[in-house]
Amino acid sequence: MRSQPGRPYPIALLTDFGYRDHYVGVMKGVIATIAPQAPLLDITHGIPPQSVMAGAIALRESWRYFPRRTVFLAVVDPGVGTARRAIAIETVAGCRLVGPDNGLLFPAAQAAGIARIVELTTPRYRLPQLSSTFHGRDLFAPAAAYLWKGTRLAALGRTIGKIAPLEMVAPELAKDELRGEVIYLDGYGNLVTNIDRASFSRFAARFSGRGLSVKIAAGASLPIRETYSEVPKGAPLATFGSFELLEVAVRDDSAARRFAAQPGMPVKVHVCR
Amino acid sequence: MRSQPGRPYPIALLTDFGYRDHYVGVMKGVIATIAPQAPLLDITHGIPPQSVMAGAIALRESWRYFPRRTVFLAVVDPGVGTARRAIAIETVAGCRLVGPDNGLLFPAAQAAGIARIVELTTPRYRLPQLSSTFHGRDLFAPAAAYLWKGTRLAALGRTIGKIAPLEMVAPELAKDELRGEVIYLDGYGNLVTNIDRASFSRFAARFSGRGLSVKIAAGASLPIRETYSEVPKGAPLATFGSFELLEVAVRDDSAARRFAAQPGMPVKVHVCR
Amino acid sequence: MRSQPGRPYPIALLTDFGYRDHYVGVMKGVIATIAPQAPLLDITHGIPPQSVMAGAIALRESWRYFPRRTVFLAVVDPGVGTARRAIAIETVAGCRLVGPDNGLLFPAAQAAGIARIVELTTPRYRLPQLSSTFHGRDLFAPAAAYLWKGTRLAALGRTIGKIAPLEMVAPELAKDELRGEVIYLDGYGNLVTNIDRASFSRFAARFSGRGLSVKIAAGASLPIRETYSEVPKGAPLATFGSFELLEVAVRDDSAARRFAAQPGMPVKVHVCR
Repeated sequence: MRSQPGRPYPIALLTDFGYRDHYVGVMKGVIATIAPQAPLLDITHGIPPQSVMAGAIALRESWRYFPRRTVFLAVVDPGVGTARRAIAIETVAGCRLVGPDNGLLFPAAQAAGIARIVELTTPRYRLPQLSSTFHGRDLFAPAAAYLWKGTRLAALGRTIGKIAPLEMVAPELAKDELRGEVIYLDGYGNLVTNIDRASFSRFAARFSGRGLSVKIAAGASLPIRETYSEVPKGAPLATFGSFELLEVAVRDDSAARRFAAQPGMPVKVHVCR
Repeated sequence: MRSQPGRPYPIALLTDFGYRDHYVGVMKGVIATIAPQAPLLDITHGIPPQSVMAGAIALRESWRYFPRRTVFLAVVDPGVGTARRAIAIETVAGCRLVGPDNGLLFPAAQAAGIARIVELTTPRYRLPQLSSTFHGRDLFAPAAAYLWKGTRLAALGRTIGKIAPLEMVAPELAKDELRGEVIYLDGYGNLVTNIDRASFSRFAARFSGRGLSVKIAAGASLPIRETYSEVPKGAPLATFGSFELLEVAVRDDSAARRFAAQPGMPVKVHVCR
Repeated sequence: MRSQPGRPYPIALLTDFGYRDHYVGVMKGVIATIAPQAPLLDITHGIPPQSVMAGAIALRESWRYFPRRTVFLAVVDPGVGTARRAIAIETVAGCRLVGPDNGLLFPAAQAAGIARIVELTTPRYRLPQLSSTFHGRDLFAPAAAYLWKGTRLAALGRTIGKIAPLEMVAPELAKDELRGEVIYLDGYGNLVTNIDRASFSRFAARFSGRGLSVKIAAGASLPIRETYSEVPKGAPLATFGSFELLEVAVRDDSAARRFAAQPGMPVKVHVCR
């Protein structure tokens, strides 16, 4: 076995615990007790409370930038204390995912490829007392720490066949428009939609030679641009952002505020007349 | 002496400095200069500004989950620049606590057992210039870094006999009710009270066989439940949270907002008629 | 070459990415992939969005507290995707600075002394694909990670002669007053001005023996004090804070809220009549 201090991968944390309470700190303390040499990297703890969708997207967009064997500890867990399962996943790509089986891990697991799933049932790899409200501390943090140290996934519990999916609406291709919706507001106020570049390109190919623009709610048409700098300050645009998803943005301002946007708001790509 | 890179414990940080300024970063820089190998773990820097009570509770609820010899660096310090002392504590449990002597360290020190207290008076273990506004940087961070590296507590200053207590109101047992109050609003909007499980159990034992509920302000009675999932979405409840203190919560919503709650708001456990 | 795990300096991060999204996490993942042993320390990610001035001041006030060879990775980058250059700086003091060439690095570079500047043009030291919106991930994080690992600055790109300055207004010395302005609101609501201690001392020397006070907007005169505790709770004062710049504060309250302050608000030191 490789010596621990040299393990060239971290435990990466993503939660909706926020930055005000000590909850994240307690999880780190539990990990440091089991695996004192594990580098801990925060992805974010600012996922909107109990927003499994936002957490799932952030995890899906993050995992591939981390070292191959990274252990991801993700906790957005509105169902804590209910019958939802606690799981860990070994992926084909190499990373490990630990968290509640509520869809949170689903998009990242799909993208990384599922090699094995276990339900976290082995009492030895959790804290002695399992509370009904804080599985991040009692169950998920220990599992992540033991995985980092070299405990085999299969030792953490019984192998199961599949995980709970995340309902993610696909963009819909109509005759002369591509219909999607806002799925996430980022911290700059950009509106991230479910319209991926592949769907967009297929739609655009149909109407090659004609201009495309984006319509939101009852608003005017927005130009589709490569960078913010192609529109004046304060002007709206649509662009493919770092998610590789179509985003609606306002240069140097918040599109969320400008358009009073919420997740679920319709966004359409259409052909200019 | 054990080689530094292998020290299996971190320096854990807890402050009210927030996440907007560079103040936390500067403290980390000071520590990294003195003890470059020390793992730094953030508990939180989101303690409400100058709320010694909130910081003290967060520290008390955190320390036991960290490795035994962890150095806790806690700074919530409204009295910086006044005569309040700067201290470090060696505990019976093993951890070390560094911070202002204003009650912030008191509950954790009580729980971990006080073995020795020093006032941070040795000029060698602080920055060359001591500002009147930023002892976190000039005094507390160096003390924590030197303790982590192996400097003995007694070398940091003169030994003193006791620390300033934190005024924490105990719940009051009346004839047919147990009277407490909100002491902390967490980031989810849960209302953490000063009613601990032991006091609650003693009260409950007196009325065994009869139902108990919780009353806040002029509001209706709230059911006492093990998990949030035992009430419908949007319904209020009382439960013992991760603090092991009675909390008033609203499932999938903020009790702080729902009940316009503030620290000090009365909360009573009473016998159902 | 020194073995990596023993390098006694971190990579320190400062951005305006906030704490809600996964952007900071992704940058850390990129660094951990290239330089798994690099300690990552967050200065702050809470710089007000696209506020190059606030980021520049925070960096200038932070760098000297870190280990001598620290690599600072700073990203406040409203011009991402435009022609602004991406740069890395080797300083006389020893630290390295990586970020956009928009003034953000300027005050820290001036203070640390510029030894060499390169434009980040070498494709080998960035991610294979360079997006137009996220150079923090694709360009700056890899550059910082390679520098930390020992790649020479000159290898990162072509050497250039100078960097873009930051327009920072100096305080203006009039006949009987020293005129400055608010340049930064900190997280406590203190108003940090551009009046440095040297300018203040020169002004004070002229009027030695006479009292000085501070005037803001149309407000009353504020006393100049060493510590907050020299005024009653809720009272305003002016003091030299941890920036070594004159600050307007309110004891135990927010001066920003009290005085509805914004960056640019005039602040004057004048002689008491």
